[in-house]
Amino acid sequence: MFNSFGNLLRLTSFGESHGTAIGGVIDGFPAGLKVDLEAIQQELDRRKPGQSKIVTQRKEPDTVEFLSGIFEGKTTGTSIGFMIKNTNQKSKDYNHNTNIYRPSHADYTYDKKYGVRDYRGGGRSSARETANWVVAGALAKQLIAHININAFTSSVGDIFIDKPYQDLDFSKTESNAVRCPDTVSAEKMIAKITEIKKAGDTIGGTVTCVIKNVPVGLGEPIFNKLHAELGKAMLSINAVKGFEFGSGFCGAKMQGSEHNDIFNEDGTTQSNLSGGIQGGISNGMDIYFRVAFKPVATIMQNQQTINSEGELTEIHGKGRHDPCVVPRAVPIVEALAALVLADFWLLNRTRTV
Amino acid sequence: MFNSFGNLLRLTSFGESHGTAIGGVIDGFPAGLKVDLEAIQQELDRRKPGQSKIVTQRKEPDTVEFLSGIFEGKTTGTSIGFMIKNTNQKSKDYNHNTNIYRPSHADYTYDKKYGVRDYRGGGRSSARETANWVVAGALAKQLIAHININAFTSSVGDIFIDKPYQDLDFSKTESNAVRCPDTVSAEKMIAKITEIKKAGDTIGGTVTCVIKNVPVGLGEPIFNKLHAELGKAMLSINAVKGFEFGSGFCGAKMQGSEHNDIFNEDGTTQSNLSGGIQGGISNGMDIYFRVAFKPVATIMQNQQTINSEGELTEIHGKGRHDPCVVPRAVPIVEALAALVLADFWLLNRTRTV
Amino acid sequence: MFNSFGNLLRLTSFGESHGTAIGGVIDGFPAGLKVDLEAIQQELDRRKPGQSKIVTQRKEPDTVEFLSGIFEGKTTGTSIGFMIKNTNQKSKDYNHNTNIYRPSHADYTYDKKYGVRDYRGGGRSSARETANWVVAGALAKQLIAHININAFTSSVGDIFIDKPYQDLDFSKTESNAVRCPDTVSAEKMIAKITEIKKAGDTIGGTVTCVIKNVPVGLGEPIFNKLHAELGKAMLSINAVKGFEFGSGFCGAKMQGSEHNDIFNEDGTTQSNLSGGIQGGISNGMDIYFRVAFKPVATIMQNQQTINSEGELTEIHGKGRHDPCVVPRAVPIVEALAALVLADFWLLNRTRTV
Amino acid sequence: MFNSFGNLLRLTSFGESHGTAIGGVIDGFPAGLKVDLEAIQQELDRRKPGQSKIVTQRKEPDTVEFLSGIFEGKTTGTSIGFMIKNTNQKSKDYNHNTNIYRPSHADYTYDKKYGVRDYRGGGRSSARETANWVVAGALAKQLIAHININAFTSSVGDIFIDKPYQDLDFSKTESNAVRCPDTVSAEKMIAKITEIKKAGDTIGGTVTCVIKNVPVGLGEPIFNKLHAELGKAMLSINAVKGFEFGSGFCGAKMQGSEHNDIFNEDGTTQSNLSGGIQGGISNGMDIYFRVAFKPVATIMQNQQTINSEGELTEIHGKGRHDPCVVPRAVPIVEALAALVLADFWLLNRTRTV
Repeated sequence: MFNSFGNLLRLTSFGESHGTAIGGVIDGFPAGLKVDLEAIQQELDRRKPGQSKIVTQRKEPDTVEFLSGIFEGKTTGTSIGFMIKNTNQKSKDYNHNTNIYRPSHADYTYDKKYGVRDYRGGGRSSARETANWVVAGALAKQLIAHININAFTSSVGDIFIDKPYQDLDFSKTESNAVRCPDTVSAEKMIAKITEIKKAGDTIGGTVTCVIKNVPVGLGEPIFNKLHAELGKAMLSINAVKGFEFGSGFCGAKMQGSEHNDIFNEDGTTQSNLSGGIQGGISNGMDIYFRVAFKPVATIMQNQQTINSEGELTEIHGKGRHDPCVVPRAVPIVEALAALVLADFWLLNRTRTV
Repeated sequence: MFNSFGNLLRLTSFGESHGTAIGGVIDGFPAGLKVDLEAIQQELDRRKPGQSKIVTQRKEPDTVEFLSGIFEGKTTGTSIGFMIKNTNQKSKDYNHNTNIYRPSHADYTYDKKYGVRDYRGGGRSSARETANWVVAGALAKQLIAHININAFTSSVGDIFIDKPYQDLDFSKTESNAVRCPDTVSAEKMIAKITEIKKAGDTIGGTVTCVIKNVPVGLGEPIFNKLHAELGKAMLSINAVKGFEFGSGFCGAKMQGSEHNDIFNEDGTTQSNLSGGIQGGISNGMDIYFRVAFKPVATIMQNQQTINSEGELTEIHGKGRHDPCVVPRAVPIVEALAALVLADFWLLNRTRTV
Repeated sequence: MFNSFGNLLRLTSFGESHGTAIGGVIDGFPAGLKVDLEAIQQELDRRKPGQSKIVTQRKEPDTVEFLSGIFEGKTTGTSIGFMIKNTNQKSKDYNHNTNIYRPSHADYTYDKKYGVRDYRGGGRSSARETANWVVAGALAKQLIAHININAFTSSVGDIFIDKPYQDLDFSKTESNAVRCPDTVSAEKMIAKITEIKKAGDTIGGTVTCVIKNVPVGLGEPIFNKLHAELGKAMLSINAVKGFEFGSGFCGAKMQGSEHNDIFNEDGTTQSNLSGGIQGGISNGMDIYFRVAFKPVATIMQNQQTINSEGELTEIHGKGRHDPCVVPRAVPIVEALAALVLADFWLLNRTRTV
Repeated sequence: MFNSFGNLLRLTSFGESHGTAIGGVIDGFPAGLKVDLEAIQQELDRRKPGQSKIVTQRKEPDTVEFLSGIFEGKTTGTSIGFMIKNTNQKSKDYNHNTNIYRPSHADYTYDKKYGVRDYRGGGRSSARETANWVVAGALAKQLIAHININAFTSSVGDIFIDKPYQDLDFSKTESNAVRCPDTVSAEKMIAKITEIKKAGDTIGGTVTCVIKNVPVGLGEPIFNKLHAELGKAMLSINAVKGFEFGSGFCGAKMQGSEHNDIFNEDGTTQSNLSGGIQGGISNGMDIYFRVAFKPVATIMQNQQTINSEGELTEIHGKGRHDPCVVPRAVPIVEALAALVLADFWLLNRTRTV
């Protein structure tokens, strides 16, 4: 518990945003996989700051170093230790916050829970931790290369893609800074974020993830339902406020006669309001889910707040922050989905005699 | 994994809907709690079938028997075994489904995953399992009696309570069959369910849960965020398609300047779009979340489907099923919330020296 | 933790010696195994009281009832709940001990740890719990039927089998009451136990276990070494004081040049001081280990002790107790060994791509 | 599982002997402990090679770097990442072993299990891993500073300390190279090891550990008995073949009337054959246990063996190896004991209401 994720394939992570390094241990990874280290770094690059004008302008190379578990290009079955050094520890950006609780941040709760807090840049509560997840997820992706995971920005503020996902061309996702495969919506989203950024404000959005070529049978049916583990994973990402899959919250307004997915003779279904999961187990249809991100809490405007003495004070975001978190969240969503799927995929080898 | 829930306080459950009994083991429960057995049975009665006209008319007494771990009225610190006998095993209601895959049920996925399936009434995939959760949750409630957990039906189909939860009187929740504290909405919801039932159809809905008097500091900040564990718990309930807390999906449309919760001097906040959780840790404000339930898949209408041979066939729900799952889901949501909170509450004793 | 054993294949148990029932949940058992229920009951019968003159004369039928997870004779992949009713709850045998701490029993430590205790017959600390392990182990044995597990009594007091295990005929183990395959030693052991029993005393002994046909590769090499898990399992059995495998404590007196097992061309070794395990992983040679049991603490003699008020008092064992625990421990040792091996055997399916 | 140890306080480790670094993540460590970093390094120095003439002459500084979880000298409650760089990777010492299976080493089993192996110096199977344990254990020691853990060399070959531990002065343990508090025995042991080393051979031995000032109530009584967790920990150390506590294997020859520990009025006992643990729970008396180490497998003599092709060949240890492992094992035994005790000490806060 605490800093581990996964059952058989398990990431245990560490690291504060402004400490020496972040990193982790990937345990339970099977032996014999040829690892494409470059592909892992590419996933990290998709997440890293400074990659476009609509994300934070911090410069962090975010280079992963593997310390064990990979030998002569292959996994050895032993635990995989890795590390990403924190090279750009501009703590002075944060020093003014030493004892100030930023609104809608975790400063207050960490202090109350632990009685002590690494105040530099959010410490452990920083989204920098998600770089660890991307490393582990990128490895997991290579383990289940036959499964196709596609996340993308589906809304920014009130700008939504107005097409079903079936009409989208996922090869376009990386073609624009906001990671929206619908290029018309993408432009609007980028314009919106640019405008919001100028105002010193931030904005929320949603990421949708579509998973194709999922084998039937992934997921455990009681407390480790496939969608429950996916939901838990997504709700672990900083700023996430909601998760829905298949028909989601819309399904709660529907009737059984319209919601049921009628079978074809081959076991596929005519509709897919189930979102590819029945009773917690994948049924072979596309899995799709949606994740809601609130606007980033750090804004470049004056806000009233308190310090650790309980005195009223004012805060004005300095540092370099994302005006909208969703473009950089896309690879994180994919990484966690890959971890969940790879875990269940391994586990499934043990569920029949 | 597989059939366990919780970290320090852990339920491990078993049971098929038409087997001998369902039950479980509650592990990690501290010694010395005076147990109110009647209160546990009352929670079970809130969940049981046949309690009103708008739920399934099956008659199951659902009496829990404790087999260990409670001695002379007190918990002893050893594992608590319990059992609920299946007294009303009308398997003949289900026998016609032996090899037929009911649409949007788990029949197909279980068969494909395990190669074998207890086809009587859904077997392990039946929501009967949730009776186990209510037993464990009712015990957990007694452990954290100072925390106040209130779930209620917040929508049925497109009928929503149109008030903020602060304006609701939770003492009214149990006053009507649909468990909606807003009695005007409750009547409309009951009428809707009655109409849907007559049509042999089913309908979805949402349950909202409001938790008051939560101590600051519950939750672990990386992979065991308080809301991530609550989300996983809720997504474990049969028919759930979505989970959101605080501002939820609406928050994804907002800007930081309107979404941030400004602190008061005492550490409370002026607004509570965070939903009582910052960085995965409770901040002492009300926790509130919403759970989406799809319409029950078993409808009293003809539907095309296939059997295990891949042949097209027709199915027409017999048995006695719920036209809407949310009224009976209310105590289940509370039970799982109690389990999550009690687990973190215990865990918190170990987080500082 | 607390009441669970195993990683992927996990038993979670409950039950006090004089409560309603003992039992457990076996989780992670693969689907599709044809279960021989009679064979499970036979294992329980090997453990049960009253089976011969040298064990306790309590009469307990110890009949296991499976409550879930087995359908039409096969495991379904869902959790297997089971229960053994306590039919012979002669609590009056124990009532005189309500607040007296029996020497070298767990009465004192339970009371100090939990502040409350089920004093009837040892409650949870009773070796009755091991009946649960025999049930789970008997199922595990059927899963790994190709592996041959042979435990036997290797010493009682200072009477030792004076042959290497290779010279023993394990088919003789069940031919005598003390479960010693060397019939000459068996007679001496039985005579010894009979004599000790008459004196109202008890005596210790050792159980040796030899496992044949073990596939190469079982065990995880750091903290879940095959011998470390076997050791933990054996040290969980009531009255166990020591565990050694291969050369064991004798190996600590040897030199490398005599201790090393030299390879044959086929990967087998000429000697087997390693006991079939190298670096925590099985190497295909016989696994053998030895378990030390102290004499049962309850003796039919007067002993000074204290009560929960800290007052000096006397105690004289009543009840019906084993003069020597090892004959009944033999099936328990086998059961736990089977659980450990089956767990690793399943796990091994996930350790390579 | 795989590379983690502990329940609430958990070390997850990584690292091969000749990779970039070894290290780990310590999870669940409570916030607010003032950390004495120097004391941790001192424990590492007790374990490191080259510290005396009777241990391996490899030179490795073994400097631990903490990467997270400690801020301004205090633990923060977040996961503690650490790393020890491998500075002296003389792989050429090992290159001749690329495809040769060293007798009584883990080369063969790793290859058969994983199909791939880091052959440099034993890779993950190297005892270098134990440096990670010493780091974690040294931190744990600081958490439970009130408990006094004393391990020492109790035998080398057939040279045993011939006094009860009560007559030993543990302040002498570090006064000699073999870590034996009985200085007369120490000299004999050192002479023995020196002689064995000259012969190019190795020798086994035992480490005894005595733990004082243990609070009553540590340990969980079924599968996490205090002695079972200690046993598992010790059996995880490279070269360990046996574990016994209290009366151990001698207890198996005794009668109940002589073995029972009679209570004093204050709850202490007159004798302590139980070894400070009753029913898996500490009773406040000294805990003592003994660990058997086989002779190191690498000897400086010619031995017949095979390579991965199954061809007969010869091997002659080069490298720089320990002639006897026990002097350097002493701090490892203490470290693991500290981890087990600290884990149960934390856990105990949650076992009563």
